Amino acid sequence: MTSISVTLTGNPQDKPSTVKEMGFGKLFTDHMFMMNYRTGRGWYDPRIVPFGDLSLSPASLCLHYGQTVFEGLKAYCGRDGQVRLFRPDENFNRLNRSNQRLCIPRIDPQFCLEALKQLVTLEKDWVPRQEGASLYIRPFVIATDPKLGVKSGDEYLFIIILSPSGAYYESGLEPVKIYVESNYVRAVRGGMGEAKTGGNYAASLAAQDEAHEQGYSQVMWLDGVEQKYIEEIGAMNAFFLLDGQVVTPGLTGSILAGITRKSVISLLERWGIPVAERRVEAQELVLAYERGLLQEAFCTGTAAVISPIGELKWREHVMTMNGGETGPVARRLYDALTGIQYGTLPDEMGWTVNVCHI
Amino acid sequence: MTSISVTLTGNPQDKPSTVKEMGFGKLFTDHMFMMNYRTGRGWYDPRIVPFGDLSLSPASLCLHYGQTVFEGLKAYCGRDGQVRLFRPDENFNRLNRSNQRLCIPRIDPQFCLEALKQLVTLEKDWVPRQEGASLYIRPFVIATDPKLGVKSGDEYLFIIILSPSGAYYESGLEPVKIYVESNYVRAVRGGMGEAKTGGNYAASLAAQDEAHEQGYSQVMWLDGVEQKYIEEIGAMNAFFLLDGQVVTPGLTGSILAGITRKSVISLLERWGIPVAERRVEAQELVLAYERGLLQEAFCTGTAAVISPIGELKWREHVMTMNGGETGPVARRLYDALTGIQYGTLPDEMGWTVNVCHI
Ligand SMILES: Cc1ncc(COP(=O)(O)O)c(C=O)c1O
Ligand SMILES: Cc1ncc(COP(=O)(O)O)c(C=O)c1O
Repeated sequence: MTSISVTLTGNPQDKPSTVKEMGFGKLFTDHMFMMNYRTGRGWYDPRIVPFGDLSLSPASLCLHYGQTVFEGLKAYCGRDGQVRLFRPDENFNRLNRSNQRLCIPRIDPQFCLEALKQLVTLEKDWVPRQEGASLYIRPFVIATDPKLGVKSGDEYLFIIILSPSGAYYESGLEPVKIYVESNYVRAVRGGMGEAKTGGNYAASLAAQDEAHEQGYSQVMWLDGVEQKYIEEIGAMNAFFLLDGQVVTPGLTGSILAGITRKSVISLLERWGIPVAERRVEAQELVLAYERGLLQEAFCTGTAAVISPIGELKWREHVMTMNGGETGPVARRLYDALTGIQYGTLPDEMGWTVNVCHI
Repeated sequence: MTSISVTLTGNPQDKPSTVKEMGFGKLFTDHMFMMNYRTGRGWYDPRIVPFGDLSLSPASLCLHYGQTVFEGLKAYCGRDGQVRLFRPDENFNRLNRSNQRLCIPRIDPQFCLEALKQLVTLEKDWVPRQEGASLYIRPFVIATDPKLGVKSGDEYLFIIILSPSGAYYESGLEPVKIYVESNYVRAVRGGMGEAKTGGNYAASLAAQDEAHEQGYSQVMWLDGVEQKYIEEIGAMNAFFLLDGQVVTPGLTGSILAGITRKSVISLLERWGIPVAERRVEAQELVLAYERGLLQEAFCTGTAAVISPIGELKWREHVMTMNGGETGPVARRLYDALTGIQYGTLPDEMGWTVNVCHI
């Protein structure tokens, strides 16, 4: 691939000065990375350009047939002024797995990581320095053929945009209320639940709206076949501490292989805390709860790192976990992961990638 | 709603003169209809404007979380020079059902039909006059909030684009080869299979690519729970003539409620041919086939109207229908529907809507 051309903006924006101004995903930095694909030519014209609107035919495939994939990761600025990425190779590899399911051509993970580092370095003044804040990174691919007709595209855009984001929790870890969804289904084996593609999120909107109306922050999905087994939560994976053992649903094809999930499993193993990837029946949680053995429940994901579940509801069963407070395992994981991400703890696993210094 | 403003193109394109030039879905007329939505304001600024690229933020919700819906219908020019739509009210009502599943605000079906008629009238010279050709109409809605974060949008675009399209069959009805898909799943109850939304088509791409590689034109989907019951085909519904009775899978929530399907059922009832909407097991088809009772199989949809199935494969069973030729029921339905659409047969059901005269 040729080298990346750079066109600088003539119109740099003011950077947000408080995390409140930042919010999440609504402000974007001055530049973005793009490249094109065409069948027969491959990926071409990698470029950093001023952030701005895309010009897309109203017939673009991505607007009609959902041929899109995306990723989400963050750049963290440590107190030492070092800007770090957390396991970005995992994101680009997962993007390729999503690409494969959606019949989108592979990207070169190494090249994309280089492009990302170059973009973040250019935008380094946009990386928030506030505790817990970060620069959210959104790589995505869309099919752009201006042609109606259900088929995989011959033209694609790969784009990376950056968004400065405040801390997920304003005041430390805050347990959330979640219910297990009994009507709507997000994904089923043989479907595309394992891919990070728009349709999976579109499928979740109605359930999420109903959850919000009832004062819950998210729904926990059940499998699509039997509607018995726990799958995942919104944009997070699910973990339970059951009688001293941590369990999380296995990667059976219908849930996303979270990178936080994978990291949590590694940390627990390192710490000698038993952890199992297996089917988890909603009914099993109720039985454990009734016997006092459901000690903790938490979600994992890039956005919040660890999200403790204070209350979990399934049908008529309302389960309050750890008195509605953050449990010790969730807390320890949160501290370990954020410590590595912000460079206050040694990165013994080699999970971080240094980008630049501020 | 205020009246529709019209901005004419200063740069009209040449119209295709042969159906070969037309193809399907690759040429677009000179104008399109658009309107915007914002929460609190409702739909606003309905307008006919020159066909051209959309300017969309790279953060637009529709490019990330698949919050999109669409419709597909056609305008037909009869030998009498009358341009007709076929049951367009059904399309706008179905669009609203898709909107509801995808948390997109309702459109006003009557207003949209008026807008469509105005647009088609303006573009009437684009309506092909060749036998079997038509003007394909694509209404669609996309969420455009420039904001990452999985939630339903507050801003939408509703757009109608028009594409002159050649006849689906170059030389009359041509039976297709289809196999029943055993691995991939398109949709499941509780999911969004009933809605016409991008994700359902994205989910189908990999299976379709594999079918093409094996020399089949499409796959026939099975239900997502038991993978036993026939659902639908690509962008078409499925019908079988079993021992003198026509059967088609019922609308259980995971398949699209085709307008051609509904019309076929009405015609069969009118003709006194027994027709049932019910579960159809793949196994049942094989058993019927082995006893010589599987007399016909065909697909229904706006694109091809009726698509006879010449060969249907499920696992190791290869079933050749009616000697691989179009059966009499498929033929009669095709003639009846196209006769109504092109005005060569009386429209006794009141299915057509006159738009203008060429
Ligand atoms: C559906 C879904 N599950 C789980 C996750 C958690 O994955 P990760 O830990 O890689 O952020 C995400 C977010 O990326 C997601 O969208
Ligand atoms: C998934 C699916 N099923 C069935 C159909 C047939 O519907 P209709 O007869 O309304 O064109 C379509 C096409 O619109 C479709 O996309």
